[in-house]
Amino acid sequence: MNQEFVVTPYVVSGEVDYDVLIERFGTKRIDEDLLARIAKYGPLHHMLRRQVFYSHRDLEWVLDEYEKGNGFSLYTGRGPSGPIHLGHIMPWIFSKYLQDTFRATLWFQLTDDEKFMFYDHLSLEDTKRWGYDNALDIIALGFDPKLTNIFLDTEYIKTMYPTAIKAAKKINFSTIRAVFGFDNSNNIGSIFFTSIQTVPCFLESMERKKKVACLIPCGIDQDPHFRITRDIAEGLGYYKPALIHAKLMPSLGGSEKMSTSASADATIFTTDDKKTVKRKVMNAFTGGRVSVEEQRKLGGNPEICSVHAYNMFLFEPDDDKLAKLYSDCKSGKILCGECKQLLLDKVWKYLEEHQRKREKAKDVIEDFFVRD
Amino acid sequence: MNQEFVVTPYVVSGEVDYDVLIERFGTKRIDEDLLARIAKYGPLHHMLRRQVFYSHRDLEWVLDEYEKGNGFSLYTGRGPSGPIHLGHIMPWIFSKYLQDTFRATLWFQLTDDEKFMFYDHLSLEDTKRWGYDNALDIIALGFDPKLTNIFLDTEYIKTMYPTAIKAAKKINFSTIRAVFGFDNSNNIGSIFFTSIQTVPCFLESMERKKKVACLIPCGIDQDPHFRITRDIAEGLGYYKPALIHAKLMPSLGGSEKMSTSASADATIFTTDDKKTVKRKVMNAFTGGRVSVEEQRKLGGNPEICSVHAYNMFLFEPDDDKLAKLYSDCKSGKILCGECKQLLLDKVWKYLEEHQRKREKAKDVIEDFFVRD
Repeated sequence: MNQEFVVTPYVVSGEVDYDVLIERFGTKRIDEDLLARIAKYGPLHHMLRRQVFYSHRDLEWVLDEYEKGNGFSLYTGRGPSGPIHLGHIMPWIFSKYLQDTFRATLWFQLTDDEKFMFYDHLSLEDTKRWGYDNALDIIALGFDPKLTNIFLDTEYIKTMYPTAIKAAKKINFSTIRAVFGFDNSNNIGSIFFTSIQTVPCFLESMERKKKVACLIPCGIDQDPHFRITRDIAEGLGYYKPALIHAKLMPSLGGSEKMSTSASADATIFTTDDKKTVKRKVMNAFTGGRVSVEEQRKLGGNPEICSVHAYNMFLFEPDDDKLAKLYSDCKSGKILCGECKQLLLDKVWKYLEEHQRKREKAKDVIEDFFVRD
Repeated sequence: MNQEFVVTPYVVSGEVDYDVLIERFGTKRIDEDLLARIAKYGPLHHMLRRQVFYSHRDLEWVLDEYEKGNGFSLYTGRGPSGPIHLGHIMPWIFSKYLQDTFRATLWFQLTDDEKFMFYDHLSLEDTKRWGYDNALDIIALGFDPKLTNIFLDTEYIKTMYPTAIKAAKKINFSTIRAVFGFDNSNNIGSIFFTSIQTVPCFLESMERKKKVACLIPCGIDQDPHFRITRDIAEGLGYYKPALIHAKLMPSLGGSEKMSTSASADATIFTTDDKKTVKRKVMNAFTGGRVSVEEQRKLGGNPEICSVHAYNMFLFEPDDDKLAKLYSDCKSGKILCGECKQLLLDKVWKYLEEHQRKREKAKDVIEDFFVRD
């Protein structure tokens, strides 16, 4: 078993073993019983059926709260450091499913402060501008404006700061060192930041002036922030936030987590034009063989194929169709070129629509934003 | 020469040698030339004549700016952790002299966040309440409401936060360790805090949208905060703040810095009643001898006497009268009881008037406060 990978909110390296990660982080697997329970509220999302969202903390309890009529809030976020790619929107699509299914209020945090403090090349004006840009992608996904509060940290700080410093008082630098791997060379804003990331877990409780459960759908790499939050939440008079964790969507280059800093062609941005998307998909890393002959004979390897991963995470919600693509690949019946073309058609169809909605989002952005 | 004392914003211990402190901190003495220059603008304050304010950074440059017609702002502050005592108001009285003399805008920061994060026994609600209480003492000193902006950090954070995180990005934990003597057990709010303390140096520049000099009158123990600020100010697009440093007013118990945590009777609070003030003054530590006979023969020692210090810092602005008290003590002409009574009369007269103004301040507090 590979133990050599690293997963923190700031570093993901090595080949991530998601089973090991559950043990290492001390989370729980979303098992069949839990899936059956969620399925009571509507058709299971393909990301649940396929274990893209595969791990959790206290999700049963959140459902208990829901069933008692107490409801729960959702919290997710984005560090606005650049354009949005498909790896970003994947968990947000899932957040929308949760919002639709449970009619839960979503607090969507844009951490312009964080990205400014962690990246030398970004000014605060840059991250704020990216925040407003990225909000268009969020809104384009179809969140309900009545149930969605998007905010930039610097524009909601007066509301958040008192709770942030109450959190900060309970967290010492030893904890930050241990959880995030920071050292004395880290700037004091980056050291403080997890206090700010803690607050949205409590915003619904603060607004309603009563304790409300909070569920955080996020990539499992973000779990460490909220382990700290969970340790201090009750001392602050709130419930511990619950989490539902996704695996990290691989890039088209085949690496473990799609990222803006990966090679430009390994990442599809929501604003890419058709020609760019085509080039990226057609150059994607696959599990194909060295020659057509060999692939016809031996079949491909969808397990390591980024095209298959894209279908699995996002673009082929139909399980039967996905299974057929898988078996056709394994048997050598379908070749990579054809498979890429099928994906490209779906990706472009999706993006064309997304880009249309993204434009329309400019007219309604104020329906979603909250500020001090 | 005693090098064994410690002076930081968070710890003052040992017998402070103020000459050594100038060398240790790398500040400049306020010399005769500089005093002569300040005297051009009006009668020198007794705290300057007596070297209570005795050290500075870049004060000549601030006067240059003033003479060029560019003006300067003043910045001072208070950590609202409890009631105000005479040691607190001493530098504020001097700040008012600077405001009156130079018609400078004063930014008065109430660090409710800091005191909450540094003191286990205080809630944020406590420090905020103390902030509003302490503001009454500030206003009672007679600051000009047109030239004075008082703010609580938690109520001005939206204005300050963007600049605070720009400062934080330039300060790493190594610096904090070295300057404040913090370690891994410090909470991450206390580590971040100096970024917040940095911002008021720039508030006048932010408001006027041009670079304006800032002068900070403060106890020399606060200098380390602003050494950090001075290191980063120009990189943030502002002038380095200048400082004018006071010695620390001793307590009536004879220790180096008056503090709320010293024995209750060693500190006179602005809200003490006459009986309490009398008890405290009459029990003060003096430089008297063991018996009346011996004191008549050998004279007292005003150098170590807290009653003399109170006269010198605050209650006997007339240099001739102070000199006479000094020589009468040295010669054994005046005894401690009489000297205490003289001080008591002046202190109570001052406090009675202060308490009256403090009550009136409740009606005008809103003329002084700024909020986001």
